[in-house]
Amino acid sequence: MTTTAPFFRSRWVQAPADVAELPGGLPKGFRAAGVACGIRESGALDLGIIVSDVPATTSAARFTSSGTQSAPVLLCRDHCRLDAVRAIVVNSGNANAATGGRGLEHAAGMQAQTASACRIESAESVAVASTGVIGVPLPMDSVTRGIAAAADQLKADGDADFAEAIRTTDAYPKRCCLDVVLGGDTVRVTAEAKGAGMIAPGFATLLVFVQTDAHLSPETCDLLLGVTVKRSFERISVDGQLSPSDTVILQSSGASGVRIEPETDDELRLGEVLDAMLRQLALDVVRDGEGARRVGRVVVRGGDATAVSAAARAVANSSLVKTALYGGDPNWGRIVQAVGAVLPDTAPLAVDVAIEGVEVCARGSCVPHDRDALTDAVQGDEIEYEVGLPGEGAETELFFSDLGHEYVTINAEYTT
Amino acid sequence: MTTTAPFFRSRWVQAPADVAELPGGLPKGFRAAGVACGIRESGALDLGIIVSDVPATTSAARFTSSGTQSAPVLLCRDHCRLDAVRAIVVNSGNANAATGGRGLEHAAGMQAQTASACRIESAESVAVASTGVIGVPLPMDSVTRGIAAAADQLKADGDADFAEAIRTTDAYPKRCCLDVVLGGDTVRVTAEAKGAGMIAPGFATLLVFVQTDAHLSPETCDLLLGVTVKRSFERISVDGQLSPSDTVILQSSGASGVRIEPETDDELRLGEVLDAMLRQLALDVVRDGEGARRVGRVVVRGGDATAVSAAARAVANSSLVKTALYGGDPNWGRIVQAVGAVLPDTAPLAVDVAIEGVEVCARGSCVPHDRDALTDAVQGDEIEYEVGLPGEGAETELFFSDLGHEYVTINAEYTT
Repeated sequence: MTTTAPFFRSRWVQAPADVAELPGGLPKGFRAAGVACGIRESGALDLGIIVSDVPATTSAARFTSSGTQSAPVLLCRDHCRLDAVRAIVVNSGNANAATGGRGLEHAAGMQAQTASACRIESAESVAVASTGVIGVPLPMDSVTRGIAAAADQLKADGDADFAEAIRTTDAYPKRCCLDVVLGGDTVRVTAEAKGAGMIAPGFATLLVFVQTDAHLSPETCDLLLGVTVKRSFERISVDGQLSPSDTVILQSSGASGVRIEPETDDELRLGEVLDAMLRQLALDVVRDGEGARRVGRVVVRGGDATAVSAAARAVANSSLVKTALYGGDPNWGRIVQAVGAVLPDTAPLAVDVAIEGVEVCARGSCVPHDRDALTDAVQGDEIEYEVGLPGEGAETELFFSDLGHEYVTINAEYTT
Repeated sequence: MTTTAPFFRSRWVQAPADVAELPGGLPKGFRAAGVACGIRESGALDLGIIVSDVPATTSAARFTSSGTQSAPVLLCRDHCRLDAVRAIVVNSGNANAATGGRGLEHAAGMQAQTASACRIESAESVAVASTGVIGVPLPMDSVTRGIAAAADQLKADGDADFAEAIRTTDAYPKRCCLDVVLGGDTVRVTAEAKGAGMIAPGFATLLVFVQTDAHLSPETCDLLLGVTVKRSFERISVDGQLSPSDTVILQSSGASGVRIEPETDDELRLGEVLDAMLRQLALDVVRDGEGARRVGRVVVRGGDATAVSAAARAVANSSLVKTALYGGDPNWGRIVQAVGAVLPDTAPLAVDVAIEGVEVCARGSCVPHDRDALTDAVQGDEIEYEVGLPGEGAETELFFSDLGHEYVTINAEYTT
């Protein structure tokens, strides 16, 4: 992400009014750092800390629904005050997943060392996240060195280094810095995200950390995070794979002095900003979907909630739809196939399909259309597929990346 | 498939005793042909007919569970005597799916024309199948010419041409010809299959036609086909995609004079032969999985039937597992990830994983092992993954292809 490109650049995200995009700098009360401690053989930054200096910091969190949650996720769920997270320590290069009791000890070690290094009284105020290879014990000597070094380098504009340190196969770091005018006051909202592969709707599906110096109650944090995650990170798929590591945490330092009260215009407005921000970050993750060339959006209407959800996932996770998206091929038969596969016992299903606004299939049957014009229409960066099921009432959407040679190259050679 | 390579060549198929593999030739009573009629622009064979000259021929069939079944599948289910199929007409190059009422008329036209050309009294004794692009009306002029030409060229050794005519993206035709000694008599069993992409467990998942000159009651046909399909074509996945066209038909002419009575040794023995034959053909389909280099087998034990099935499909359809299989990478963390993703609310899940007999994960935690030896072990053609879930009682298996560059190339450029 260069600083000159506007952050809100997808046609599927409405940029909020009265916000200023800045190149970086954390909200008041926060400091961060990213260091290289030797977990990644490349020598890249691989450990980051973000900390709020305000003892009364509030927070909320969401985690992967995987049955094989990583040690840090298990630790956060069981041994962390998720409504009052002061600091977060993150390493890349190793997921600390499928590492058993030793993995839990390592995660607890990261938590305790970070609390100590950042002079935070209770270790339970520190959240831990790890991302990278699964099933390899964490090199704790490196991690210990990294925590000490990062704690020494914490600074108010450390968000860029932190975002760099949490990358794995991401082609570029993902972050955002906004100043938001609320009434006559200004608050800052920043976010750092990582995610490129092993991304599926189902839950948080990546690492995302959001900070604001607005003052939110823990309940408001939880409400806003829950609503906006549902419309962003729960609505994307790179490869239909769910990570054991997915973690999203929102922290509010309150250091701006601006209080956001429940059920006020300010709360609504901040919610809109968070919604747009997380939605654009989610799209950035999809666009970075290991080697992706294009992003698709599938909207399914009709039927009931179960049917539209199943159909949308079937389309978004279909390797045939995804390769066609990659190839710039308007092969809509694959949409029909994907939808039919997950709605058995409905034949003949009266499905409608439109691509980039061109109706190609109505009530299960092909509709004459200008094939060349449609082919031209699917050469862009963002392609929209609309699916109609019989009946009315439900609607859902999913964003997904294509499936191309780069995905194969990256994942066939990503060594254990 | 060259005639010199043994048909039964997978370590996962036990070759039946007392059978002779032959290069070709249909069982007594059957004739077949394959012709080029212009549906496929390449000029390749694209229409085939197989017919039994015995009026009392018995049969059984299975079809895709897709909600968007093709016109031929809908026709077969609604307007065909599936226990007494005399002839089957098949075209490649066009699936006649998502083609609405006109598609149903075309399928009925193929049925009537074939009955007439083959002098079969009732059109309902003719089954129809189509495979190829979805959503394009069938070019009926070509099809009509093809049916007339194929009916003229029917011959006892037409199985090779027929198998050739039903191919689409298959790298090679798939067929088998066996003479089976039952008691003192010999019966012949032949099969022709097509399938390379859009293959998923869930149902028949491709086109497969099996003929025998043993005499089976319709009930025995149905029993044997049902049992053997469950252990073969329902246990494979190329890309997790379910076709609208999948059709499997078994025909028995009885022309050998050998009657197979229910609950006899002969029935058991013929069932074993069919089982091995369909299982090897299913593996051939997986091996031909568009551009596949290696075939994986995942066996899941423990838990309950729902859990083992979900876990096996998650592994077999994981693009991360499949790219690792392609890359010869023993990245077992992806197995853990795939299993965890479909078993939410079980964390921490005490999953066991072994690859090629090497235990790599026990009760959710990594087990020290010789990484180099394991890497060597996953360079072969057939790789076995064993997954253990907590508890006992259930077991299932799935065969799956890898995901490589050739799959992307084929599917990004397979034009609508």
